[in-house]
Amino acid sequence: MSLLLRQCKYVISPLSLHEIAVYGERDILIENGVIECFAKHCDAPRGIDIIDCREFIAMPALGNAHTHAAMVALRGYADDYELFEWLERVWQAEKLLSRDVVYFATLIGCIEMAMSGIGAFQDMYFFPDEVVRAALKIGLRVRTGPIVGIDNLDMKRWKALESSSNGMFNTVINLHSLYGVDMDLIEKAFELSKTHSIDIHMHISETRREVFEVKRRFGKLPIEFLESRGWLSPRLIAVHLNWVTTWELDYIARAKVRVVVNPTSGAKLAVGGFAPLREMLERGIDVGLGTDGACSSNRLSILREMRMLVLLYRHNYWDTWIRASHALYIATRGSYGVMKIRGGVIEPGAVGDIVLIDLKTPWLYPTTPTRLVSHIVYALEQSNIRYTIVNGRVVWSPETSENLVKLFLEATKHIDRYIDKIEELREDVRKGEARSFTIPKPRGEQDCPQAG
Amino acid sequence: MSLLLRQCKYVISPLSLHEIAVYGERDILIENGVIECFAKHCDAPRGIDIIDCREFIAMPALGNAHTHAAMVALRGYADDYELFEWLERVWQAEKLLSRDVVYFATLIGCIEMAMSGIGAFQDMYFFPDEVVRAALKIGLRVRTGPIVGIDNLDMKRWKALESSSNGMFNTVINLHSLYGVDMDLIEKAFELSKTHSIDIHMHISETRREVFEVKRRFGKLPIEFLESRGWLSPRLIAVHLNWVTTWELDYIARAKVRVVVNPTSGAKLAVGGFAPLREMLERGIDVGLGTDGACSSNRLSILREMRMLVLLYRHNYWDTWIRASHALYIATRGSYGVMKIRGGVIEPGAVGDIVLIDLKTPWLYPTTPTRLVSHIVYALEQSNIRYTIVNGRVVWSPETSENLVKLFLEATKHIDRYIDKIEELREDVRKGEARSFTIPKPRGEQDCPQAG
Repeated sequence: MSLLLRQCKYVISPLSLHEIAVYGERDILIENGVIECFAKHCDAPRGIDIIDCREFIAMPALGNAHTHAAMVALRGYADDYELFEWLERVWQAEKLLSRDVVYFATLIGCIEMAMSGIGAFQDMYFFPDEVVRAALKIGLRVRTGPIVGIDNLDMKRWKALESSSNGMFNTVINLHSLYGVDMDLIEKAFELSKTHSIDIHMHISETRREVFEVKRRFGKLPIEFLESRGWLSPRLIAVHLNWVTTWELDYIARAKVRVVVNPTSGAKLAVGGFAPLREMLERGIDVGLGTDGACSSNRLSILREMRMLVLLYRHNYWDTWIRASHALYIATRGSYGVMKIRGGVIEPGAVGDIVLIDLKTPWLYPTTPTRLVSHIVYALEQSNIRYTIVNGRVVWSPETSENLVKLFLEATKHIDRYIDKIEELREDVRKGEARSFTIPKPRGEQDCPQAG
Repeated sequence: MSLLLRQCKYVISPLSLHEIAVYGERDILIENGVIECFAKHCDAPRGIDIIDCREFIAMPALGNAHTHAAMVALRGYADDYELFEWLERVWQAEKLLSRDVVYFATLIGCIEMAMSGIGAFQDMYFFPDEVVRAALKIGLRVRTGPIVGIDNLDMKRWKALESSSNGMFNTVINLHSLYGVDMDLIEKAFELSKTHSIDIHMHISETRREVFEVKRRFGKLPIEFLESRGWLSPRLIAVHLNWVTTWELDYIARAKVRVVVNPTSGAKLAVGGFAPLREMLERGIDVGLGTDGACSSNRLSILREMRMLVLLYRHNYWDTWIRASHALYIATRGSYGVMKIRGGVIEPGAVGDIVLIDLKTPWLYPTTPTRLVSHIVYALEQSNIRYTIVNGRVVWSPETSENLVKLFLEATKHIDRYIDKIEELREDVRKGEARSFTIPKPRGEQDCPQAG
C-alpha cells in the first residue's frame, strides 16, 4: 500500500472543470493508500517499492460511476434491441444466473477495468456481496449493495462488510427505476437511505418511453415526481438522464443530486436523447461518467466513454464548447466525487489511485505538453496503460499481467455452461434468422463456394 | 508475398451487406499477394512461410478510404474549432511543411495504420509522391495523387509511378472541394479524370456552411451542381456528405458515385449533420469508411470508425436498424470497393490483405461464434491485432514490432523542429489563454500549492 513513483515525466491532474495541470518531472509518494508527497523530490521511506517513471505520464485513475460488471457474460448478447425489448431478453437470461456465475463474471469485468485504468466502480447487480468479493480480489474500490425488491435490506450486515473492507467498499442502495419497482418498496428505499445516510443509485429518465410511462402513471416527469415526494437530496445518484428537462435540472442542482452519464450505452440502445451536459455543468451539478454494463456498451472502458462524451456532445449541440479537459475532469474527479471518494486528483491527501501511461507509441505523437490532455481523451489505447495503481497497490502492470490472464482464463471455466444455456434462449440464433452472421456448416471443400 | 495461415480458429468474411460468414478451422494460402486457396486444408508449397493460427481469428484487413496521413503531425493541434476556423489554423501550419516532414509524418501514420489492421488507404496531401514512398516503405496499399491547384497534373508521371509499384499504388486526382478551388481548375480536373479514366477524390457537403456557400454561389446544392455539370460518374469519390439531401442521393445512386463517410471527424468538428447511411445503403450506393486526418479524428483507426458509425447512426435515427455486420462490411469490402481493390473478403482471387486477431483478452469474452462480429466492431482493441498482412507480406506482428518502433522513433527526429515551429503559431498557447491545460512553471515546493 506504499509506493514511490519516481520522476514521472509528466503528471496530469485536474484542478477544476476548466483547468488541467500538466507538471513536468515530479515524484509521487503513496503511503497507506494515500498520496503523502507530490513534489520535485519526495524522500523514500526505507524498503519502499519504487517505480521508475521517467518514461511515463502519471494521472489519476479513472472512475466508473455506473456499471453492471457481471454483465460481461452478456457482452454481444442483445446488441440490436432498444431498451425495453433488450430488457426482456436480458431479464430472461438473468433468471439463470447463479452466485458463482456472478462472482466469476464480475472478476472478469474487474480485470478488464483494471487493465483499462479504472480504480473504482459503482455497481448494480444480483448477488452484490459476490460483486464486492470479486472487486476486493482484484483490488478495485467498489460501491454496491442490495437491490430493492430482490435482496434483504438489512443495512447492518452491509455496514459490517464495509468496516471489514479497509475502506475499499461502500454501500449503496440499488433502486432499479421508477418503472421497474413497486411503489411501496421505492418508499421504503428512500426511508432507509435517509435513516442510514446511504446513497441511492438509480436509473432515471433513460428513455423517452420511461419518461412517457412515468408521466402517464404519476402525472409528472421522473425528476418532477421524485421532487414532489421530497426524494431529491445529495444522497441520490441519478444515472442516465438522457431525457431530462432543464427545469428538472434546476431541481437537481438545488437538491445537490449527483449525476452519472453513460454516452455509449445511450447511443447503442438508440435512446435518441442525450444527457444535457452543458446545462448540467453550468448549474454546477456534479457529473460522473459510467460505462453501463457490457451488454449495452460492450466495454467497461472509461477511456472510450471520455471520447464518446465529447463526440456526442458536439454532435448534439453543433458546437465545440466541450473540450478534452472537461471529459478528463468528469472521468476522474467527477466520477470519484460522485462516488464520494477523495480522488481523481494528484495531491497530498487524495487516495493513491494512479495510472501510468506509456507515451512511446505512434498514435500519441507528437507529445508536446500542450497536446497530452487531448491525446489521453482522443487517442489513447488500453495498451498505453502500463500500471494501474489503486490504494497504493499495483493492480495491473506488465509484471502482474500473467497472473491476471490466468485468473481470467480460470474464471471463464465457471461461466461457460451459463453462456451455453443463455445462447439457446436467443431467438435470432434459434430460428436461424440472425441477419448479422451466418455460420456455414463444415462441409467438404467441393460443396462450399467460399472454400477454395 | 506468399504465406500460409494454418488452421485459423475462425475466419470471418463479409459475403454481403447483411451477411457475414463465420467459418471454423480453415487454412488460407496466399501466393504472389493473392488468396489462392481457402479451405479446410490447403497444401503448402515447399519453403513457404507458415503462421500457426489456431488461436487467431482471420478477417480481411480494414480499408481507410479517406485520410490525410501526414496530419499526425497536427494531432491534438486544433481540437476545439469548427471546420472553417479549423482550416484557417491548419492551413497556416501547413505553409511550413517540407517534403521531408510529409514523408516522415506519413511514415508514422502508416505505422499507426498497420498496427491498427489497415491494409490500404486513400490519401489527400501535399507532396503526394512522398506519401506513396512512405506507404510502400511500410508495405501498405495507397491511392493518392496530385492536388488540383497545387501539384503538376502531368498524369503520365503518375501512371509511370503506378506501374513501378507492383500494383500497390494507384493514382487519384485530389480535388479539395467546390469552395476551396478555382472553377477553371475544377473543370480541368474533371476533364482529366474523364480522359485518363482516373478517379477524383473530393470533399463534398461536409458542413452546413459549405452547402450554404455553394448554394449562394451556384444556386444549387453541391451534388445538384456537380450533376448539372455532368460531373457525377463512377469515377467520383464523394467524401463526407454529412449534409446531403435524399434527392441528391438519387443522383449519386444513378451515376454510381462512390461515397466515403467519416463519423468521428464529423462529430469532433461539430458539423451537426450525419451522412444518411440508411438511405445510401437502401439505394445500393457503395459506401466506404475513412478516418479523415489525425487533426480531425485524432486517430487513424478504422476499428474506432466502425464503432462510431453504428453509434452515431443509432443516435441519429433513434433505431437499431444498423448492426455490427453492416459496419464490418463497410470497413472492409466497402472501403476496398470504393478504392477499386478486390479485397475486404476472404476468397480465392481476393488480395492477400488479412489481419489476425488474438481472442484471449477479458474484453472479448465470451467468444461464442455468434458474438465474434459484435466483438470485432464494439469491443476490439488495437492490441488484439497481432498480425497485419498486406499483399501476402507481414507488415505488423510481434516480430516486426521492434523494427517499426525504431522506425517511428527515427522518424520523429525529422519532424520535431516542425512541431516546435507550429506550436508557436497556436494563439491559445501564445496568449496563455488555453482553457484546457495549464503548465505550472517549475518552482520550489514551497511556492507550489499542488506540490506537497
